[in-house]
This record gives sequence, structure tokens and C-alpha cells, in this order.
Amino acid sequence: MTANKRVLTGITTTGTPHLGNYVGAIKPAVVASRDAATDSFYFLADYHALVKCEDPARVQQSTLEIAATWLALGLDTSRSVFYRQSDITEIPELTWLLTCVTAKGLMNRAHAYKAAVDDNVGASDDPDYGITMGLFCYPVLMAADILMFNANIVPVGKDQIQHLEMARDIAQRFNHRYGEHFVLPEAQVDEHVATLPGTDGRKMSKSYDNTIPLWLPEKKLRKAIMKIKTNSQEPGEPKDPDKAAVYSVYAAFASERQRGEMRQAFADGIAWGEVKQQLFQLINAELEGPRERYEALINNPHKVEQELERGAEKARELSRPFIAELREAVGIRSLG
Amino acid sequence: MTANKRVLTGITTTGTPHLGNYVGAIKPAVVASRDAATDSFYFLADYHALVKCEDPARVQQSTLEIAATWLALGLDTSRSVFYRQSDITEIPELTWLLTCVTAKGLMNRAHAYKAAVDDNVGASDDPDYGITMGLFCYPVLMAADILMFNANIVPVGKDQIQHLEMARDIAQRFNHRYGEHFVLPEAQVDEHVATLPGTDGRKMSKSYDNTIPLWLPEKKLRKAIMKIKTNSQEPGEPKDPDKAAVYSVYAAFASERQRGEMRQAFADGIAWGEVKQQLFQLINAELEGPRERYEALINNPHKVEQELERGAEKARELSRPFIAELREAVGIRSLG
Repeated sequence: MTANKRVLTGITTTGTPHLGNYVGAIKPAVVASRDAATDSFYFLADYHALVKCEDPARVQQSTLEIAATWLALGLDTSRSVFYRQSDITEIPELTWLLTCVTAKGLMNRAHAYKAAVDDNVGASDDPDYGITMGLFCYPVLMAADILMFNANIVPVGKDQIQHLEMARDIAQRFNHRYGEHFVLPEAQVDEHVATLPGTDGRKMSKSYDNTIPLWLPEKKLRKAIMKIKTNSQEPGEPKDPDKAAVYSVYAAFASERQRGEMRQAFADGIAWGEVKQQLFQLINAELEGPRERYEALINNPHKVEQELERGAEKARELSRPFIAELREAVGIRSLG
Repeated sequence: MTANKRVLTGITTTGTPHLGNYVGAIKPAVVASRDAATDSFYFLADYHALVKCEDPARVQQSTLEIAATWLALGLDTSRSVFYRQSDITEIPELTWLLTCVTAKGLMNRAHAYKAAVDDNVGASDDPDYGITMGLFCYPVLMAADILMFNANIVPVGKDQIQHLEMARDIAQRFNHRYGEHFVLPEAQVDEHVATLPGTDGRKMSKSYDNTIPLWLPEKKLRKAIMKIKTNSQEPGEPKDPDKAAVYSVYAAFASERQRGEMRQAFADGIAWGEVKQQLFQLINAELEGPRERYEALINNPHKVEQELERGAEKARELSRPFIAELREAVGIRSLG
């Protein structure tokens, strides 16, 4: 590897990706994978998926779909390292080493855990009712994900900043006790993440049930776009693009020139149906090629598996010598 | 492996073994390793050692000393599986799988954790002050140790019964969610564990600072034995063996015939110095041969390392296919 900054991105493997994920997370990350000035690591977080998902078939299917999605969208796997977390068995081992230096009080303060406790208390249940050790311990696993590859930068949403601070805290404790083995990772919070409105105008999100799945076939994609909520203004009436969900979605896919033209069309009283038609064409043009590649990959899972295995080999070139160094550091050593 | 019952014994790798450990734990376990009716597993719990020991050199040195001790005392490594926990990297991986099914409330109730909390509360500290995630989570690691090899029986002291119950609980939850993969281990509590008095007459224990180290050289062993507390009765006075620490120690090493003769000698007024001389001879005769083997092993750590590597190979013949089965069960699967 080069002396480039390392950027590490974890990809959750639950759920079906939608246009909001594409615009807000996948597309910028795929672009970043081509940046020659950084070394990018992308991993499918299937050990994490086990915290939330009890259905083995879904864990497997989601891993396939998400991996195929990233590959179809052009992730540069020759330049970046794209791997499945569970292929790097050094990660759970590092998790244990880190567990031994992590203060329990640190985990008590984790937002996700505290929210679950608050819900229980609100429902007059035992504070830890229904809470698994998976939920409680996963910030340690996440620290291991990051520290295993000594990532310098971790792009995260605001809700993940705390986990990065925890990873730094754990790394510092380990370094303090056993010598300087870990660099302290930094969160990279993009304040301007493109958020896409869903079909009801609110932020596109699984929890609102307002998403447009990324890989809808053409006909269904058109149908879904046609259902985006608009107001009752007639054709010919001038319309305000900044109050129209359909324009926000358009803007996320359009070039600057296209955006300007569409704003003009709004002022000129373009019909909603026409906006949606143009939006469909814009999105479909961008996704057509990737959709074909996606379908091809989904129908040839062996090819996805091979890509992940190649990525795992690259990742293990780093994780194996590093875990050996860390074992030595804590006293797990050959006797002679 | 045969269809024998599997018996699994964890060996902590901190501290220097003393005569109390030898009589109460090591000797009976070594005898059990020769039992053709069971398959015995013995492991050096070095991942556990990290919870308590921050000194890497001590972790390594203890592993060597404890391994050499068991080998010198005749553990039958051809019949049993004798391995170092950290050589089985499937164990931390299984720990994570189990973490995801373990209720946090179960860990909240662990005696060792609760005792630490009580100490903090008593000192008006934060309840989790100074408590690491290692202390909080180690019952899950212990469950992984046991379930990794589907042990039927785990010989434990009374203080460990709760951990066995936790391992059963965790196994049941996993089986319930993912199908029957684990047998439920049973604690084997020996109510008649031989406890040895220390030099001050109380139970021999590191915490009382009254131990006689197992591998003292002959001269120092004699000296230590001579220091065992006795009363002020003179030679010629009849003495009560059941009130004399020196007799309890003697009894732990003596044959029935020897015990009878010594009781008679007590009645006949044997001098304390003479009892101690006979006790030294008895213990020294038993330990002389093992001590030579121990010294030879300590001076040839490579040989100990080789034994442990051979044991790890045997253990991995079981752990590797089993972790593959368990990964499949939870949904960590090849995509094609």
C-alpha cells in the first residue's frame, strides 16, 4: 500500500438500497473510490447485520444485493479494497483485545443503547429489556473495523460521530497500555449530504415507507416516480421548484445546465406530468447501464463472491501481519 | 473423535502454581486425562488473562510456566487435547456470534461484575468505575470456550456454576433461533475438592500470602515446609492430627497406610520437626521427577510451544468445521 490517507467506509447489509441511499451515500463513495490521493476501504458489515437481523437467508441475500449494487455502480475494486467483514476473522479477534481495554462506562453512554433503555423505561419495562449484548457491544466491533486497517478517515453521518469518538478513546487506551499501534481515526462528516425527498415529500427513508428502490425495472420505476406527491397546480401555472419534491429529486440527478432549464420550465408553467416524465428519463438514463450490470451480477452470484474473495485477500495482507503485531504487544506470543 | 463424553477444563494462565492448586485441581485433572471413557480438553485461557493482566511479559511467562507444569505432571496429551485458547481464532469469532444472542440482562447478573459494582457503590464511586468491558463480557467468551467444542461436562468450582448456567442459557437461545447446534454443557462440581491449608493454617491461597509454590527447589521446599505453623506442644506429648495443618498437608499426599502410621505417630507424641521432615520427604518424593521434567521444559520453551501447536491442530480439526457450520446457520454464507 502507499502512504496515502486511508478512508474506510462500512456498508450495512440489511435492507434494499433506494434512490436516497444512492444519492446520499453510494454515488459519492463510488466517486471517492477513484481518488488516487487516498486508499479506500469498503466493507460489507455482515457481523453487524447479526445484531439486527435474525433471518439467515436475509443476511445472505442482503449481502449479495448490496455487494452487487456497489459493483454495478462502478466501485473501482482495482484501486480500493472491497471486502466482507466476516472474511476477516482477525476482526473479531481484535474485538476481544479491544474489549479488554474498553471502559464499560463508555458503552453505557452510547446513543443507540441509551435510546433503547429510554424506550424501556418509558414503557415501564426493565431498562435492559430485550437489549442484546450485540447492541451493547457493537461500538467495540466498529472500533475493531476501523483500527484493524488503521484508517485515518471515516466518512460518517452525524449519528455516527459518537462511535468514532469511542474508537479514538479505545485506540488511545490501547496505545497507552501497549505502545503506539493505532492511528487515531477522524470522522469526516459531510454537512452537505444530499438528502432526497421520498414519494410523500418527507426525507426518503425506510421508516417512512416512502422510498423508491434503486433497482426497480424501468416500468415500475416510471410508476413510482409518477406517484411522487405534487400540489394541485394546473399546467400553465408558474410553479415554485423549491417547494416541489419532484424538483429536489430532479436536481440530485441533473447537471447544472439541466437544473437551470428545469427551473425555467417551472416558471413557464410546465405540467407536473411532464416534469415527472423528464425526471424518469433522467434517472433511467443514469441507472440503465448499472441496472443491466446489477441484474447480471445478481444472476451470477459466483462472480460477486469472487470479487469479495479477492478483496478479502487484499485486506488480509494488512490484517494478518497487524494482528500478529498486536498479539505480540499484549503478550500472546510464541513460547520459543 | 469418539462418541465419548467431552470434558473441558480451562486453566487460568496468571500466577505461579502452588501446592494447593496441585492437590485441588491439577493432580485430579491429570488423572482424569487418562480416563479412556471421556475425551478431555484442557486449554490455557490466555484471552481471559488479558482481562486481568496488563503486563505482556507476564502473560507470556505464565503461559509457559502453566503449560510446562501440566506437561511435567504427566498430562496425557496423546489421549487429551491440550491447547492454548488464543491458537483457536474461531473462539473470538464464536464469541461475537454468541454476543448477538446474549441478553444484556444476563450479564448484569454475573457475580463477578456485581461484586465490582458493589465495591464501587460502597466507595461512593460511579457503579461502573474502573470496570472494563472485558470483565463484563467474559462470561460470553467462556460460553464460546465451552460451546466451541460442544463439551458435555465442565468441572468447576462453586464460584463458576453461574457461568455454566449462562453458557447453557446462551446455547439455548442460539439453538432456538438457529437450530440445534449446541449441546447444553453441565457443570461438574466436586463437593470434596481437596483443599490444602497454607503455612498459616488457613486455606492455601495467593490472597492470604501463605502458599508454597509447587516448583520450589528442594532446599527451599524444605524451608517452606518447616515454616508451617504448629502449636507449642513438646516432643513426647500426644498431638491431635485433625487440628494440625501439617497433618492435613501430609494426608493430601500420603497413602492410606501412611496416614494411619502418621496418626499413630501423633498419638505417640512425634516431634513437630520430625513430622515436617517426613512431610518434606513425602512431597519431595512425589515432585522430584516432575520437577526435573519441569526444569527441562522451562529451559526448552520450544518443546512446550510444539506441544501446544500439536494440541491446537487437534482442536482446530473440530473448531474449523464447526465454525463453518455456525456461520452458515446465522447467514454468513458463500454467495455462490
